[in-house]
Order: sequence, then structure tokens, then C-alpha cells
Amino acid sequence: MSPVPTALPPIALTLIGIGTGNPDHLTRQAIAAMNAADLILLPHKGEDKAELAALRQSLCDAVLTGPAVPRIAGFDMPVRRSDGNDYLAQVDEWHAAITQRWQAAIAQALAQGCLTAPADGAAQRVALLVWGDPSLYDSTLRIAARLQPAPATVQVVAGITSVQALAAAHAIALNDIGQPFVVTTGRQLRDHGWPAGVDTAVVMLDGQCSFATLPAEGVHIWWGAYLGMPQQLLDSGPLADAGPRIEGARARARERHGWIMDIYLLRRQAAASG
Amino acid sequence: MSPVPTALPPIALTLIGIGTGNPDHLTRQAIAAMNAADLILLPHKGEDKAELAALRQSLCDAVLTGPAVPRIAGFDMPVRRSDGNDYLAQVDEWHAAITQRWQAAIAQALAQGCLTAPADGAAQRVALLVWGDPSLYDSTLRIAARLQPAPATVQVVAGITSVQALAAAHAIALNDIGQPFVVTTGRQLRDHGWPAGVDTAVVMLDGQCSFATLPAEGVHIWWGAYLGMPQQLLDSGPLADAGPRIEGARARARERHGWIMDIYLLRRQAAASG
Repeated sequence: MSPVPTALPPIALTLIGIGTGNPDHLTRQAIAAMNAADLILLPHKGEDKAELAALRQSLCDAVLTGPAVPRIAGFDMPVRRSDGNDYLAQVDEWHAAITQRWQAAIAQALAQGCLTAPADGAAQRVALLVWGDPSLYDSTLRIAARLQPAPATVQVVAGITSVQALAAAHAIALNDIGQPFVVTTGRQLRDHGWPAGVDTAVVMLDGQCSFATLPAEGVHIWWGAYLGMPQQLLDSGPLADAGPRIEGARARARERHGWIMDIYLLRRQAAASG
Repeated sequence: MSPVPTALPPIALTLIGIGTGNPDHLTRQAIAAMNAADLILLPHKGEDKAELAALRQSLCDAVLTGPAVPRIAGFDMPVRRSDGNDYLAQVDEWHAAITQRWQAAIAQALAQGCLTAPADGAAQRVALLVWGDPSLYDSTLRIAARLQPAPATVQVVAGITSVQALAAAHAIALNDIGQPFVVTTGRQLRDHGWPAGVDTAVVMLDGQCSFATLPAEGVHIWWGAYLGMPQQLLDSGPLADAGPRIEGARARARERHGWIMDIYLLRRQAAASG
């Protein structure tokens, strides 16, 4: 391996939302940004490494059509420590570790001559592909803010989120007419119960079927896994009936594929006060 | 005008999210669905009729490339009655009126020979273009449920919402780490104040700068109008400073363009309880 320089060239960083795994989720803007990049960073995650990395690669193959195909550099995502109750400290350590991986991947591409300082002094265009959208339960913007030196520019390209993919797959609206809804996490649902002030909750990042901790009466659930992918799973119904069914389907699917990404929407009968 | 038949042919309805007005927001799936349609229904709204209808038409011009270009049928959206306090009744009347316009537009296209019953008995493919995403503060799914006879199928194609366009334009995350956020309306904010249980609120459908009704201390606002369009406006800062600035900019822009679509995110310093 080539020696890794410690100083990075000036980079123009683009964080590209790529949707939930279906190349047809890509926007024209995302496709253009991918083609305009000098280097595309492709994070590989623990258990889902093989299948999801292949999926990201296939997205690149599907849409990279420019005359100069960008270099694609994969890097392994570090594993987040999950012992103890210091959740924010764990996240902070993890972000620091991811930042180092980014820096090393960029520096290595530079050392290998895949990135060269343009004669005109322009910044190198580095793109990072993000599942869903960089604005939603994703660390990429926070990692970008830690890079040293800071990128010359940071541009975000919005992508279809799993929230939208869920609603589209079930052909449902997220909100009741004129009503608010909350987007939250499985942890929040377990720790705090039904969110205050709303009758609709979209729940993400839930590896533990936290809906099972709620009183089921009057609650309807719409669930989806692997949204937009060939192996997509959908279920919906009164929580009392659908909840146990979903727990079973989720466990079997995770066993079969080795990984799962899922999301659900809960709606309860509106409180009498409206 | 040709006589309008009362019975519609079987239709396969596709509701296509088109983003906030930038053709580059369109996904590959949206472009394919537009090209596959036999008829595209293009709603025209009151004050924004000319400019927004032209924008929707330009989206069609940009991406309709199939050998058989679909027929595009514009129709005028009815105006929602806004007197009195019976908001849900107003919405119900309005949805009934929109449903009639859809039916008439489809029937007229049929009468004009633009839609003909396929010999193989397949359904006619009718598409409707929706700003943003059909799942978010949009009536299209509810109108579709009122059509008589019911469509043979209803398919939803997710689009980039103004929520995501706002976050992308400011390069911000919607959520604090692991924290929930609410998506709500200007009316809710005026009637109920800061939403319960969250430190972040995304506010839509606000024609009255309802942020001005909140205590500004400790609150930051990120605002955007005409997101993704050439005339895009952005502002952000502590609400006490940015709020009045945004009120002025919004009034001037609306005066100049004759219409405005805007959205904002409010975040307050996290409560001590975390």
C-alpha cells in the first residue's frame, strides 16, 4: 500500500441521497452529481457488507455513463460501541472513527494518483453515496463537518427516504388532513411511549419491534422492509393482529438475508379533542 | 366541446411526485411513469395558474421522450371555501369538487378520442403530477379514493419533498442525533404553540409566518422559498433576528412573483431533561 499523506487536497464534497436501494429512486440531480465526481466514496457496513456494497456498486454501474468514469473507493465502516448507556458518547467516538476512514480513503486515492491536484487549483470533487437522504437519521453531514481541512464546499443532493418509499408502497398519506406527525426512533418509542401531541408516528432505526411495547388498541400499523428492492416486504393492519405477524416476518427475513432495513407508520384513532 | 360521457373506462392511476419544481428532482421512476402514461392530468391552481402550469409543462417537455408522447390535459383546480371555522367540511367539499374536475377531464379526453379502450381490455394509464410527494400534505390520494368507478390500480411514485429540498439547500440534518421531530402546519403552530415532546419542527402550509407567534428565545430558523427553482430564497438564523427579515423577504417575493411556496424548520435548544 502506498504511504498515506496526512494533508488532503481541497475537496468539493457532495453528499448524494440514493434512495432505498432501487436505481429508479435516483434523481436526475443524483445521477449528474455521481457522474461529475472525481472520486466516489462507498461505505461498507458490518453485517450487510457484501449484499449492500454490491447494491451500491450496481447503482454506480447503472448510472455512471460519463466519458471519465469516477474512481470508486470502498472503505469499511467502523462498528459503533454499544455497551453502556452513554449513547451520545458512543455516537461521538463512532463519528470520529468514520472521519478517520474518510480521510484515509481520500488520502489513499490521492497517493495512488487517482486524485491529482487540478492545474487550475480547483477542488477535487468527492462524492459520498447515502442511503435515503443525508438529512434523515444519517451521520454523513456530521462527519463532513469534522473533516480537516474543512471541505471547500459541501453540497447535498436530496434522495427518496424510506419514509416516502413506505408511504408510496402502501399508497397512504403520512398525515391526516391538516394534522401533524412525528418522525422518531424505536429507542424513543420504547423509552417514552406514544409521542405527545400527535396521532401519527413514523418509526425508524428500530431493530427491536418497539411497537410491541405500546398498547395496541385503536392503533393501525403500516410496515415495510427492503423497500423498493426485489425482496420488498409489506404488511399492514390493526396493531394487535399485524404486530405479531410482522415480528415473525421480520425475524425470518433477517435470518434469510443476513440484514434488514425496515420502517413503519403507526396511526391511532384521533383523540376526541381533535 | 364534445359531450362528456358519464362512465369512465377502467384506469390504472399513477400519482407521480415531481419534487419542488426543478426537473433535476425527478427520479428515474417518475420519468418512466410519465412516459408510460396515456394521459397526464395537469392541475392548474388559482393565483399560481400561469407560472406553475408553465413549470409543470416544462417538466413534461424536459422528460417526455417516448415514441408515443402522452396527451396532457390541464384542468382548473376549484377554489376552497375558507369562510367559517368548519375546516374539515371545507376540505371535504373541495375534494368532492376536485374529483368532479378529474372525472370530467378524463371523460373529455375519452370523448375526444385521446383515450380509447385498448383492444386487450387493459386499463388506460392516467398519471397525475403532484408537487413534492403524494404522501405529504397533498389531497391527491384522497381524491383518487373518491373516483367512480374506482381505478383498477393506484400506484404512487415518491418525489423529493420540500422538507428534503429545504434540508439539502441548507445542508442541515432534520433531526438531532437519535431525537424525534414533528412535521406540522402553520395553523397547528398558531393554535397550539410549540409542538409537544420535540425540539425540532418542520412547518408547512404556512401563509401567515406563524413562527412570529412563538417566543423566539433559544429558537433557530432555517427558511426556504421556491426551493430548487432559479428564484430560490434561503435565510436562517436566530428566530429573533431572522424572523422579521423572513417576513419582509416573503412579502416582497410574493408580491413580485404573484405566488410563493415556502417551508421552514425550527429548532430550539434541547430541554434540560434531554
